Amino acid sequence: MASTVHSTSERRNELIEQEKKVKERMGKIRHKVAVISGKGGVGKSTVTVNLAMAFAMHGHANSVGILDADIHGPSVPKMLGIAGQRLQVGPPGAFPASGPLGIKVVSMDFLLPDENSPVIWRGPLKMTAIRQFLSDIVWGDLDVLLIDLPPGTGDEPLSIAQLLPEMDGVVIVTIPSEVSQAVVRKSAFFARQLGMPIIGIVENMSGFVCPKCGFKVDIFQSGGGRKMAEELGIPFLGSVPIDQTVCQDSDKGAPFIVEHADSPASKSFMEIAGKVEEFLKNNERMKKMEVK
Amino acid sequence: MASTVHSTSERRNELIEQEKKVKERMGKIRHKVAVISGKGGVGKSTVTVNLAMAFAMHGHANSVGILDADIHGPSVPKMLGIAGQRLQVGPPGAFPASGPLGIKVVSMDFLLPDENSPVIWRGPLKMTAIRQFLSDIVWGDLDVLLIDLPPGTGDEPLSIAQLLPEMDGVVIVTIPSEVSQAVVRKSAFFARQLGMPIIGIVENMSGFVCPKCGFKVDIFQSGGGRKMAEELGIPFLGSVPIDQTVCQDSDKGAPFIVEHADSPASKSFMEIAGKVEEFLKNNERMKKMEVK
Repeated sequence: MASTVHSTSERRNELIEQEKKVKERMGKIRHKVAVISGKGGVGKSTVTVNLAMAFAMHGHANSVGILDADIHGPSVPKMLGIAGQRLQVGPPGAFPASGPLGIKVVSMDFLLPDENSPVIWRGPLKMTAIRQFLSDIVWGDLDVLLIDLPPGTGDEPLSIAQLLPEMDGVVIVTIPSEVSQAVVRKSAFFARQLGMPIIGIVENMSGFVCPKCGFKVDIFQSGGGRKMAEELGIPFLGSVPIDQTVCQDSDKGAPFIVEHADSPASKSFMEIAGKVEEFLKNNERMKKMEVK
Repeated sequence: MASTVHSTSERRNELIEQEKKVKERMGKIRHKVAVISGKGGVGKSTVTVNLAMAFAMHGHANSVGILDADIHGPSVPKMLGIAGQRLQVGPPGAFPASGPLGIKVVSMDFLLPDENSPVIWRGPLKMTAIRQFLSDIVWGDLDVLLIDLPPGTGDEPLSIAQLLPEMDGVVIVTIPSEVSQAVVRKSAFFARQLGMPIIGIVENMSGFVCPKCGFKVDIFQSGGGRKMAEELGIPFLGSVPIDQTVCQDSDKGAPFIVEHADSPASKSFMEIAGKVEEFLKNNERMKKMEVK
């Protein structure tokens, strides 16, 4: 019995210690933004990676981080061309891997023996991993940390919401279809219930233009993102058209806003990134006014 | 202290009782097939719903069930046009909702106050819900129960694997892109580690043909599903081309193999359904031989 009590109090002290570390490490990061969607496969990781690149290209080189919080299906490293890297460990903790333009990345991918290994974990273990990603990683001073969350409104997004109450806000990604909207709408309510500000909605895979004849086909319908934003009274950040080069670039490990900077998808994306940055600046201004 | 011990043993008895009920209810169902993918948004629910329709149309009317095990993002009811229904409760338990051709459906969607409510649950609660879906629902005698699992290799697929050791097998769905393959491959290893037979791989969203000029564009690349199947030594069940009517039909709540029976997507899908049925028949034959 005594030993149980002892280990419980030890565990409690550990958690308090870890919480302190989370505060310390996260205190050095000016902005934290989570990318969520409720539904999988709508382009959360694509949005995260290209948002990071957009920031890094415009005045924040070496000052952007990505936490790939998708424990079961990490794809950020592959999209940045750094899959299979390992985290380097030193006395202060583990260091993030380094991607293009000095983007700092932490992902479950870097901890797996090989790319095929599934992570067969239940919720509590995932919470522990995410806590460690925030407390034990030497992120250093960053302007922005983007957090790529897995689909759903379960363990991973809940953990992030609880561990980072100071989060600037969330970007919600959807595809235009009604089936997707129905699920993604839940994540807007999720964010509200947990008090996370919503930066806005991005509509991905919106309409397709035949590269040969120019005919426009709404493969997954279109306009659903804007409609949802209006219904919920949330800013609409923009829509990104379907473009086969986006997928090709992701597979190659080269973000499309760099590889195909002149495409309509890239131009639309840069506007979205601009709106997110605007939100963060306003947020900072308001926080400073509150302090005064 | 005494009360704690009491409630623990009570809880244990409850679990034993529930396990008995799972065995009893599930014993009346000839075949159980799970549809998994590891990655979200690749078309698991579309495959599940159309597979159910294919079976119901070919000799199994009123004998097919779907368990929508995606607690956070249930979309089966919307795709079958029965969103917002409620489960009817009687003395023997709760009855599944009834879809087209008498398909019996159980989904978190039927238990939510409205379609926008997010289910903010951690893993253990999800396990409890899934266990109840198997033990407390009056499924009755069925030829096939299809289980639509959420993305990832966490709580929900683990619970199903543990609760249904007699599962016939899993159908794995992927889109052709390398990023998707990398994640979906994990679910093949997941199934193997947990001893669930793999029926085969379906490649969804494979290639797009412009409806105006006939030009073929591989939006999400193509051939990735077959490549993965060959690499892993798993049967390749077929590929379903991208077709905007598939999405429109899902949004309308009408499975595309009925609404657009003559499209290439439907024809390809019917072949896939045939292969799954073939697998189930062989499985049954082998089981009978084992018994003898």
